Amino acid sequence: MDTRLTQQLAFLIEIDKIKGIIRKTRNFSNDRHENDAEHSWHIAVMALVLSEYAEERVDVGRVVRMLLIHDLVEIDAGDVIVYDRSAENEAAEREAADRIFGMLPGDQRDEYRGLWEEFEERSTPEARFAAAVDRLEPVLQNIARRCESWNANGITAEQVFAVTSTIGSGSPALWEYVKAELERLQEEGAFEQ
Amino acid sequence: MDTRLTQQLAFLIEIDKIKGIIRKTRNFSNDRHENDAEHSWHIAVMALVLSEYAEERVDVGRVVRMLLIHDLVEIDAGDVIVYDRSAENEAAEREAADRIFGMLPGDQRDEYRGLWEEFEERSTPEARFAAAVDRLEPVLQNIARRCESWNANGITAEQVFAVTSTIGSGSPALWEYVKAELERLQEEGAFEQ
Repeated sequence: MDTRLTQQLAFLIEIDKIKGIIRKTRNFSNDRHENDAEHSWHIAVMALVLSEYAEERVDVGRVVRMLLIHDLVEIDAGDVIVYDRSAENEAAEREAADRIFGMLPGDQRDEYRGLWEEFEERSTPEARFAAAVDRLEPVLQNIARRCESWNANGITAEQVFAVTSTIGSGSPALWEYVKAELERLQEEGAFEQ
Repeated sequence: MDTRLTQQLAFLIEIDKIKGIIRKTRNFSNDRHENDAEHSWHIAVMALVLSEYAEERVDVGRVVRMLLIHDLVEIDAGDVIVYDRSAENEAAEREAADRIFGMLPGDQRDEYRGLWEEFEERSTPEARFAAAVDRLEPVLQNIARRCESWNANGITAEQVFAVTSTIGSGSPALWEYVKAELERLQEEGAFEQ
């Protein structure tokens, strides 16, 4: 069997591990915590359906590719809630990117590593819209579950407003919707902190 | 809030239910049966990484869109192993497509319903390659687990060869690889039926 296909299949089997990386939020339709594969699928579909709300015209295919692979680094670095990100965690993710994308043939290693860096740096309209959708999903989960994962992790309303307002860089229209929902939850006293 | 965004968000929350549709095969990296959201994510990434093996030049973005939404009908129609497909099951899936894609605004309903039909009919090179990758994942899982889900469901080697040979319509190169692996498993006596 040729080496190129061997490398590609080994990569595709290795990344199965994100099905075991458990996130802080629960699914909408059951009480199980979501894993990274489910999350990645869901935000890829969200990007397709909501692309008309991107701040600038985006190549949706590129947004979807970014979203499908952006969490692979968590196989080694684990899931850290966005409110607790640290330089140490970022260094661990860079090492993970070296190892995991490094399993691919050189051309694809560079392509996917590049997509991941573009996403991390929010350096293009595609990356900013992808980041907005990546943020949107846990916010919608917290809206549906009345701030559950924020309350469980001691996150204040102020922190939530600060972090989720970054949705506005990729999609002012989606941020407008989210902001109104957060204000409603705050009025209703759903934030414990 | 505008009606269009309300409809889109209701659709995006409804489709969360595929995280609870459990497949016959188990993951590579843990002993849990895979769900449809994990499967959809995994085959979307497989399509990206393996697109060079498509029989004809394909629009990979279209392949990925098809794969991300092809299993939504199972929210209503359930997961049926490919060896047990029936006219009744196909009718249930068509009704499910009416209901689920019908939650979207008209233009998107038609777009996604159309993509789903294209996939079901294998009417384009994109649909044939998507179908090949959709078939490839459970085959790789069965190769890794020595025919586990085939043996558990009473599927014979003859049935497996007949059904998996359809991979060849979308990707002769991937079918060549799979065929050699199946022949190896057969020689080693891994098929119980």
